[in-house]
Amino acid sequence: MSLPRIAIDAMGGDEGVRVMIDGAALARRRHDRFQFLLVGDEERIRAALEDHPNLAAASEILHAPEAIAGDEKPSKAIRRAKTTSMGMAINAVKQGKAGAAVSAGNTGALMAMSKLALRTMPGIDRPALSALLPTLGDHDVLMLDLGANTECDARNLVQFAIMGAAYFRIATGVEEPRVRLLNIGTEETKGTGELQDAATRLKEVSEDLAISFEGYVEADKINRGEVDVIVSDGFSGNIALKAVEGAARFVTDLLRRAFTSSLRSKFGFLVSRPATELLKHSLDPNNHNGAVFLGLNGVVVKSHGSATAIGVANAVALTARLLEEDLTKRIEADLARLGEESLRTGGQR
Amino acid sequence: MSLPRIAIDAMGGDEGVRVMIDGAALARRRHDRFQFLLVGDEERIRAALEDHPNLAAASEILHAPEAIAGDEKPSKAIRRAKTTSMGMAINAVKQGKAGAAVSAGNTGALMAMSKLALRTMPGIDRPALSALLPTLGDHDVLMLDLGANTECDARNLVQFAIMGAAYFRIATGVEEPRVRLLNIGTEETKGTGELQDAATRLKEVSEDLAISFEGYVEADKINRGEVDVIVSDGFSGNIALKAVEGAARFVTDLLRRAFTSSLRSKFGFLVSRPATELLKHSLDPNNHNGAVFLGLNGVVVKSHGSATAIGVANAVALTARLLEEDLTKRIEADLARLGEESLRTGGQR
Repeated sequence: MSLPRIAIDAMGGDEGVRVMIDGAALARRRHDRFQFLLVGDEERIRAALEDHPNLAAASEILHAPEAIAGDEKPSKAIRRAKTTSMGMAINAVKQGKAGAAVSAGNTGALMAMSKLALRTMPGIDRPALSALLPTLGDHDVLMLDLGANTECDARNLVQFAIMGAAYFRIATGVEEPRVRLLNIGTEETKGTGELQDAATRLKEVSEDLAISFEGYVEADKINRGEVDVIVSDGFSGNIALKAVEGAARFVTDLLRRAFTSSLRSKFGFLVSRPATELLKHSLDPNNHNGAVFLGLNGVVVKSHGSATAIGVANAVALTARLLEEDLTKRIEADLARLGEESLRTGGQR
Repeated sequence: MSLPRIAIDAMGGDEGVRVMIDGAALARRRHDRFQFLLVGDEERIRAALEDHPNLAAASEILHAPEAIAGDEKPSKAIRRAKTTSMGMAINAVKQGKAGAAVSAGNTGALMAMSKLALRTMPGIDRPALSALLPTLGDHDVLMLDLGANTECDARNLVQFAIMGAAYFRIATGVEEPRVRLLNIGTEETKGTGELQDAATRLKEVSEDLAISFEGYVEADKINRGEVDVIVSDGFSGNIALKAVEGAARFVTDLLRRAFTSSLRSKFGFLVSRPATELLKHSLDPNNHNGAVFLGLNGVVVKSHGSATAIGVANAVALTARLLEEDLTKRIEADLARLGEESLRTGGQR
């Protein structure tokens, strides 16, 4: 490929075709070297493109007769890979017609289809779902796995750490990310045998991999900005991520309730609006949009189902950056440095 | 015992003897039928009691020459049960000199000592650590296990549900608590085999137990007020609890930062103070203080290490209520209704 191209599943997400196309157009303004493959209902994509001649000039349309439903079971979805916008976007990556795919559709279906079509890269046993979250520090924090694998062994966790560190370097420019394993305490004896084995192994290999492995982190420290990459199995990671999202919404709901509890509070709210807007901006998921499937032969990015055009643009821009910096090659290089054999024997119970 | 008596470990906690005694005195004003056994350094307890003649009149002092350190390993702590305030408070429950013990000390040591001295009650295989959290609804939500058991089978989870429901009834007066299992999705196929087996078993037994079992709950719904008792293994529960605590602090930290970002915001903060105080009150852990160890032959309550006197008073008042309503008997009755045999065979893989 002369130019990196991004396949966009135009049909996924709660907001329909227009928000995906508006988002891609916004991203295109930021990364004008990129080309797009817009996959979905051709007529609706053409209509949405009328507002965006720049994007239209950089895009090809791939008509898909069907779309995956938001509540469709992954097992059913994978049988419709050839006729749905999601499946066809992923297949475009498989066939080399695009370097990456972005979808705002059904996460389970996207994960299942991506695994089946793209397969895991050499040296990686299982892909992981990762996302950046806001912190009080200078950088976001990267969490993985967020739900691709309910149960993981030490070897999986070590591979997640390597992939997460590679992604974090690209996303932030930090050369030696601080990596920790999510656990229920920081003492060496805490947690499961898998976590303890993974910690032992990461201690051994971190120097070779330009990772600063710092042991365990508890879930109340996720947003403190004291750690760059937090590694966990998909069950714990999903629980932690959702608990953080839910608690943040809980506090802002309480705040809204408090601000409307009296006339004085309402007036105070008006005066404080710049402050509350700043808070809203920090917590807006659109500013952290784009969960990345790591470990596949190709980049697949999940945009949040309810993302705005700005959110979609952020997910697309992130995808462009991962392509440009060749995330997959970087992970391969790290795995090679480690030596496949040593990884295979390491971290086994 | 004619009068229920509560043993207070006066030495635990970051704030020293005085906050424990001040807290007990506050609680005594609310529950004047209760007696206290104050365990710790006699001289310091006497000094703290000088301000509280009412508490002094209802208390006996049990001198303990030593105290468990905040970072002391549970394995070391259990060897000092006979000479430390924590160990002696628990032993007082074992010997029937008190109906319950309250400590603000080292959680791991408290758990280990309590299990060893009090043993699990008949029909319960493992005790669980539980706590109430604030919600947007009319009641708090009860979560368990929060860290006593890293891994749990279906049978453990079913027992936790029964104990949690009994506690929730006493704490809130709600007769048929809505119970859910913490999981990473709400579909039946989600999560581990243990969770799926526990769900099957809870569906079967919920009617007999006056439990409204409603399937799974995801971690972003913890504080919505749509569920009363959330059951999980101790690893997931601890991750979820700490993630909620951390995220709540993160948002309030962001808010503080936003409010001090400009003169106008600072003024807005002053005007909005009633609203932000309301928020602070809702989130203040002192208003939800007291984590309960369920499933032991005796009630043991952990007060937060940094709780204020009001926080300690809340933990002591909660303890008094659990004694008065005879939590342990209620759990026994539920287990009996279920039939020990059916519980033993149920939920096995």
